[in-house]
Amino acid sequence: MRTAYHEQLSGLGVRLAEMCGLAANALDDATRALLEADLSLAEQVIASHEQIAVMSRQAEETALRLLALQQPVAGDLRRLVCAIHIGADIERMGALAVHVARISRLRHPDCALPDDVRASFTEMGAGAVQLARTAREVLLSSDPEKASRMHKLDDAVDAEHRHLFTLLMDHNWQDGVCSAVDVALLGRYYERFADHAVEIGRRVVFEATGGMPSTKQLA
Amino acid sequence: MRTAYHEQLSGLGVRLAEMCGLAANALDDATRALLEADLSLAEQVIASHEQIAVMSRQAEETALRLLALQQPVAGDLRRLVCAIHIGADIERMGALAVHVARISRLRHPDCALPDDVRASFTEMGAGAVQLARTAREVLLSSDPEKASRMHKLDDAVDAEHRHLFTLLMDHNWQDGVCSAVDVALLGRYYERFADHAVEIGRRVVFEATGGMPSTKQLA
Repeated sequence: MRTAYHEQLSGLGVRLAEMCGLAANALDDATRALLEADLSLAEQVIASHEQIAVMSRQAEETALRLLALQQPVAGDLRRLVCAIHIGADIERMGALAVHVARISRLRHPDCALPDDVRASFTEMGAGAVQLARTAREVLLSSDPEKASRMHKLDDAVDAEHRHLFTLLMDHNWQDGVCSAVDVALLGRYYERFADHAVEIGRRVVFEATGGMPSTKQLA
Repeated sequence: MRTAYHEQLSGLGVRLAEMCGLAANALDDATRALLEADLSLAEQVIASHEQIAVMSRQAEETALRLLALQQPVAGDLRRLVCAIHIGADIERMGALAVHVARISRLRHPDCALPDDVRASFTEMGAGAVQLARTAREVLLSSDPEKASRMHKLDDAVDAEHRHLFTLLMDHNWQDGVCSAVDVALLGRYYERFADHAVEIGRRVVFEATGGMPSTKQLA
């Protein structure tokens, strides 16, 4: 009985890692759709979110069932409560990828991104996707050291996000208000996606050590 | 022992309601600071967020302790897991109020809002604050009918948010790119704040009935 329980617990971790991989792929595709004004790819990102949402609900149900049936304490209890938070973080990441895809769809056949900011979004996209893939690995390995290093990658995303705002706030911005609004919101979506991935890393550290590393400043 | 436990469980609900009231006040003050370019009020919102963050951590610790010591099942288990989610929602609401306050602070002594959108933010602010106050009441009363009615109020916030975007995307927008970016992000913060309040209502319905009402479309 106890063995079956531990299998279910580790199965839950594997399932969350899988969801995290799907969220990474969703943002990767959404970024490509954004850069290339690829409508069908954008539609695909939007349609495939349901899978992450369903998996997130299933993960929470599994966690609740294990809490009810096994009444875990200490480490296992912490792990289940973390799993509940992580499921919510991943679902949000998927929703943010959908937001990116929706802006591509809205502006199609035009590209939502002016040339000046393409490099920024290529960078932020790569960084945010890499953070989600690292979160996926960390969920599988439970490696608190790797989790702690995620901050560095997030700092790079934040730096690019700040750079984007200097471009937007520059008096030489030539691409009009509509485009600036899209770019500002898109920047926010990437930043939040990255923050959720970092939050997953923090929770894995919490699971492994029982101590929660300090939170980011109110992203 | 069982009575002390139920007292702690209902104490947790009261504590969450209190936090929700603080988040409502934070956004109310942040909205006033935004409309009146009131720097000291903006600073006050920013400084007071720590209280919500601390209370949120304490609420989660209480929930974890009750899960570990009492090993609840069925309704009580659902209630504790909801409490964990709700604490996270409220902390996020507080963080969004801080974001609003930070934009006021950044633009001071100017007002971040052009005249054309003041009415929109007055409306969205009032709606979002009312949603948070309704969430507070619902946490105290556990009234699923009142919780279900929150959607209507949220629809009004969403309608105002859409109206804001028609103003922004209008070719007659006269207030420049910088201002448009502020307005777009501020609109997003109010919309998300309202969504978290609605989410709390949904969770109270879930607690009371065991069935989760359908989620909003990916806000």
